[in-house]
Amino acid sequence: MISTSDVERAAARIHGRVRRTPVLFDDGVWFKLEHLQHTGSFKARGAFNRIIAAGALSAAGVVAASGGNAGLAVAYAAREFGVAARVFVPATAPAVKVAKLHALGAAVELVGEKYADAYDAAVKHAADSGALFCHAYDQPEICAGQGTIGLELLEQVDGLDTILVAVGGGGLLAGIAAAVEGRARVIGVEPRTIPTLHSALDAGEPVQVAVSGLAADSLGASRLGDIAFAVATRTGAGSVLVDDAAIAEARATLWDRYRLAVEAGGATAYAALLSGAYVPAPGERVAVLLCGANTDPATLTSPSGAPPAARTPR
Amino acid sequence: MISTSDVERAAARIHGRVRRTPVLFDDGVWFKLEHLQHTGSFKARGAFNRIIAAGALSAAGVVAASGGNAGLAVAYAAREFGVAARVFVPATAPAVKVAKLHALGAAVELVGEKYADAYDAAVKHAADSGALFCHAYDQPEICAGQGTIGLELLEQVDGLDTILVAVGGGGLLAGIAAAVEGRARVIGVEPRTIPTLHSALDAGEPVQVAVSGLAADSLGASRLGDIAFAVATRTGAGSVLVDDAAIAEARATLWDRYRLAVEAGGATAYAALLSGAYVPAPGERVAVLLCGANTDPATLTSPSGAPPAARTPR
Repeated sequence: MISTSDVERAAARIHGRVRRTPVLFDDGVWFKLEHLQHTGSFKARGAFNRIIAAGALSAAGVVAASGGNAGLAVAYAAREFGVAARVFVPATAPAVKVAKLHALGAAVELVGEKYADAYDAAVKHAADSGALFCHAYDQPEICAGQGTIGLELLEQVDGLDTILVAVGGGGLLAGIAAAVEGRARVIGVEPRTIPTLHSALDAGEPVQVAVSGLAADSLGASRLGDIAFAVATRTGAGSVLVDDAAIAEARATLWDRYRLAVEAGGATAYAALLSGAYVPAPGERVAVLLCGANTDPATLTSPSGAPPAARTPR
Repeated sequence: MISTSDVERAAARIHGRVRRTPVLFDDGVWFKLEHLQHTGSFKARGAFNRIIAAGALSAAGVVAASGGNAGLAVAYAAREFGVAARVFVPATAPAVKVAKLHALGAAVELVGEKYADAYDAAVKHAADSGALFCHAYDQPEICAGQGTIGLELLEQVDGLDTILVAVGGGGLLAGIAAAVEGRARVIGVEPRTIPTLHSALDAGEPVQVAVSGLAADSLGASRLGDIAFAVATRTGAGSVLVDDAAIAEARATLWDRYRLAVEAGGATAYAALLSGAYVPAPGERVAVLLCGANTDPATLTSPSGAPPAARTPR
């Protein structure tokens, strides 16, 4: 469980290490451009907070299990402090992701075929070596670090009512909901194909879900984190599901209308608004969090290059 | 010739019509994200100011000569006011650009093989029909509209010293230099292959230059505008040249390090800083204007997809 004060402490710790990402206002919506963060996602915030909060590290440094944004962020933060990083990824991970981890100076261990195999190996390595394990979402310092986005939004948007946030394992939701508790509401948005939050709220506890669809590479957790569940229920966070078609349309629109390049998971929160899955009340001041941009930019445009009529710039 | 008060009047006119684009601070630099403007470039500001300042228009509406950003901006602004737009482009213009103009509701006239042919036809059309001619850079209202970026920067960056601005015909430079006159300095950055400002300052008047290179599609004017020359000399604007290799490196770095997708012309100002062609003094507060994003995003990454060592995120 984390509270506003945990997030405030995180903000003090990571100040100067992460970018204060700007906000673009248009058409009644505040877009928080967190996809411009170091390593292309919000994950750098939690990684820095986890590593700084731990104090002096052993020579084994830090360890993570991730073929995606969390691994990049941990590798980056470790490099900034000159400590060793080891990242366990499934052997099925795309070579381009492994190359990026290498470019950041991380040791990469290819283990098994599923994320769970890499996860188990990372946990074992931490226990054996004394390396600091950095979870992708379910540790207090990780969640609190991500939550610093919420504190920035309170400063950047006067009278902010609502923040739309994509959910995978829920670390981002947990941090932001704790950060703005009592001051703004948070709505978790997730693909209908990966309903970790929705299923947990339904069942009264985090449950396993099947993982598939367009945003599985960044939102593909199979179970909501315990911290996220506790904070979501305590703060009354809302839950909205969106179809993959809505995510694809949101991503294409962000490029066509705004020249914002985001990954599918990064467009998921906007999909709720664009598709009408979430309809603000009159006068409601809504921020949409764009949380990641680790994407092949060649996939941003339609094959013809011409904008479809529905996505014409306005 | 334009002054600060012209830009202030422009800001009042176009308020609510254009996006107030945000600023990203990192690594000692303030990036002005003007490439997120309507139609993907700063040109929307001048187009709105020109059209609004003109008052009631005839049924002939507005006319422009441009296969690029200026044409898109005029078409967009005209559509917002429900007036007709006619855009003259060389018959050699890429079909994708013509399609975008059509998508914005503009009539497109394909004329001749060179920009000068389209320009002459547009001027003749304006004279014959009474349509309002919108120049790509050398009209007071166009320059003043672009200059509103400078007023925003003064508000967004405390103690701003210097603004790096890409130069083609110089409308952007003229507007911004007028906007911040006496309060900040402006440095015009241009490709060594299209030195309109540099040559004009050398010669003591605007002169014809050859046009080639990576950024020719957006900065490819063959002569600096008269307004830009007058304002640049009055305000003491600086001039820096950069190689195409520096522009390419700046564009790739903006994607790799920041996930900002810009066109070659949009990366040119940053190229001056990244290549060392412009070296700020200690403590100098520098803003870099990213002015356009009308680019094929598939060209943002290296073929392998892996970031070269020199462009590793920091």
